[in-house]
Amino acid sequence: MEQSILKKYAELLVFAGGNVQKGQPVVISGNVADADFVRMVQDAAYDAGASDVSIDWQDDTVTRTTYLRAADHIFEMYPDWRVDRFKFYDERGAVYLHISSSDPDLLAGVNPERIKTLTKVSRQKLKPHSALTMSNALRWSVLAVPSPKWAAKVFPNLPQEQAIAKLWQAILKAARADGENPIAAWQKHRENFTERKNFLNAKQFDKLHFTNKLGTDLLVGMPKNHVWVGGGDVGKDGIPFFPNIPTEELFTAPNRNAVNGKVVASMPLSYQGNLITDFAITFKDGRAVEYSAKNNEEILKNIIEMDDGSHYLGEVALVANSSPISQMGILFYNTLFDENASSHLALGKAYPDCVQGGSTMNDEELLKAGINDSLMHVDFMFGTADMQIVGIATDGTETLLMQNGEFAF
Amino acid sequence: MEQSILKKYAELLVFAGGNVQKGQPVVISGNVADADFVRMVQDAAYDAGASDVSIDWQDDTVTRTTYLRAADHIFEMYPDWRVDRFKFYDERGAVYLHISSSDPDLLAGVNPERIKTLTKVSRQKLKPHSALTMSNALRWSVLAVPSPKWAAKVFPNLPQEQAIAKLWQAILKAARADGENPIAAWQKHRENFTERKNFLNAKQFDKLHFTNKLGTDLLVGMPKNHVWVGGGDVGKDGIPFFPNIPTEELFTAPNRNAVNGKVVASMPLSYQGNLITDFAITFKDGRAVEYSAKNNEEILKNIIEMDDGSHYLGEVALVANSSPISQMGILFYNTLFDENASSHLALGKAYPDCVQGGSTMNDEELLKAGINDSLMHVDFMFGTADMQIVGIATDGTETLLMQNGEFAF
Repeated sequence: MEQSILKKYAELLVFAGGNVQKGQPVVISGNVADADFVRMVQDAAYDAGASDVSIDWQDDTVTRTTYLRAADHIFEMYPDWRVDRFKFYDERGAVYLHISSSDPDLLAGVNPERIKTLTKVSRQKLKPHSALTMSNALRWSVLAVPSPKWAAKVFPNLPQEQAIAKLWQAILKAARADGENPIAAWQKHRENFTERKNFLNAKQFDKLHFTNKLGTDLLVGMPKNHVWVGGGDVGKDGIPFFPNIPTEELFTAPNRNAVNGKVVASMPLSYQGNLITDFAITFKDGRAVEYSAKNNEEILKNIIEMDDGSHYLGEVALVANSSPISQMGILFYNTLFDENASSHLALGKAYPDCVQGGSTMNDEELLKAGINDSLMHVDFMFGTADMQIVGIATDGTETLLMQNGEFAF
Repeated sequence: MEQSILKKYAELLVFAGGNVQKGQPVVISGNVADADFVRMVQDAAYDAGASDVSIDWQDDTVTRTTYLRAADHIFEMYPDWRVDRFKFYDERGAVYLHISSSDPDLLAGVNPERIKTLTKVSRQKLKPHSALTMSNALRWSVLAVPSPKWAAKVFPNLPQEQAIAKLWQAILKAARADGENPIAAWQKHRENFTERKNFLNAKQFDKLHFTNKLGTDLLVGMPKNHVWVGGGDVGKDGIPFFPNIPTEELFTAPNRNAVNGKVVASMPLSYQGNLITDFAITFKDGRAVEYSAKNNEEILKNIIEMDDGSHYLGEVALVANSSPISQMGILFYNTLFDENASSHLALGKAYPDCVQGGSTMNDEELLKAGINDSLMHVDFMFGTADMQIVGIATDGTETLLMQNGEFAF
């Protein structure tokens, strides 16, 4: 990929994604194999005036070897110094930038108990940090770059070099980073969301009714004063940022106790290197009471049964079938992209800013408002080209919101 | 380099260098550019039975960019979480393995104040950790692999690929890792040191007198019950290890207050990316009272004036002119190699085990025994092909220890 395009992509992450301000610390997490791009992001962060840039290096092979070969008790520990590292940067108001490139099959064949144990302990320990990012007290942003294994997964029939080139092309197109001025393109992207957000926020539907031929028939109750979010976010300090590059979704939090019916996934879920396929979940009064999957049902079980909150929904997101990512028709095996190809739900924690005043409520107040809490937050796709969504007001009036996968308002 | 040779080299670091035991945690520090070799060391550590292996990734470009572009106050901080990371592994009895490959000119042109400030604060904060490694309470080992910039510095007239191949060859030869069984070669290497160590330890010289035509005329007083160390070390728990790969030196601690005369360096000193050339230091009652350098005298000043102890010597080491590294005649611009080419001294902290019972003495007791303390420990070379060393006993009897650069006993 051309250096000038990469530089613009790195700058998109820093200036639009995290919107780094003068004097702010920046933490970049990335894979050692992507060191060249990580260094470009470091440079862009200093260009934006960062006080200091710390790199949190990852390595797929090291991670996989650890899961396969370390002693059992290692997965029960998440040392305090790791928590304190986040705290050190959180207290200094850092911006967190993530560069994702991992092999979707990274953890295939790893004992799921090890993954479950470490995920649980790390999420418990990092709850204060997650609370800051999820409530927009801290800005963060994630984008992706190809890796050979990821490219081979997406384009299994192409030789490595071609697969990587094609994945770069798809990523940059999806990220609206293939033009002359990606930062300006994202500014415009944000504005396009405003009208639909305003409409939905004014309507304050009581329920959304999702149906399609795949078998989804789901009533999602909405909490009072819910807020639709999309096309970027705004930090508590008023500074806009884009947590996800790309983003095509309009989303909010459902009422955790008012979801009823069955949802059938329309895409496999790639979770920590394992692919869960052909799965469906039935909810009763918000709680997942039944579920099945063709492959990796055990992994789905680990997600749903992580804690009490992981049995409930924390996000409902609308994506038009005509979104560029959906139109590409590529399964990326990466939530960052796949969630923007299709309407989706998330099991687990809700974003507090999806209800008015939510970012200043405590856990108890949020739960009382119907806003779910959990150590998990896992998206899965259920949108299809024939998806129909009807908004039902408190007085029973119905408004068609989506027909044949396209927005109808 | 052939994979099978690299694998043996990685195993040398793990099985001979750090001598990793079953159930021990291992911390590997290495550059992201050396990820393939780091992963080999990780595998070897698990082969040795490590409970877990943590990687402390470094990157030359990131480090240099930080020194050049971060805000001034960043260099005054060494966050507690970094200290606690060492503590976490120290308390679990970890083995520390280092893979060195840095560009000798990495920090050339960086404001020396920034380097000095960060070096001082980090060494102060990491004093408890250093005390554990320097007293052999923890095992550690360092070896090197080539990097393009390091190879270009050592072989400036060769094309990159040839320079790297030649540096690999030189490193493996110096490290006695170019044969069929490097681990067995190192076992033999250890045994070869025993006779000379026993001789010197029995003699218990009062002073060593170093002279050569370059201008060195130095009397180094020895502390009571000093212990010569070399050809590997033994941990407090009785497990042998090799802190340095390669190692060709016999060394001990001088009496910090009994060094008098002038020492003229015989090789430039590459310190944190800066080359100090043609320097000399004059000592009076142990303290450096005068010094000069042709290039980077300011850096030499920063070393000597870091704290009180950095004005005094903490190590005196004898290396024969016929050592393989000396015979190669290559200036490596890397202390790990260059210190094994020539007799040398170190400014700063002494190894406590260089005096009998030293590893159980506290700082005050060590100082009373003449064993130096400092945040620094910096080696510099003064051995030459015409070096003469005479050992002087308490009764004045003289023993010739080295003539024309070769051991005479």
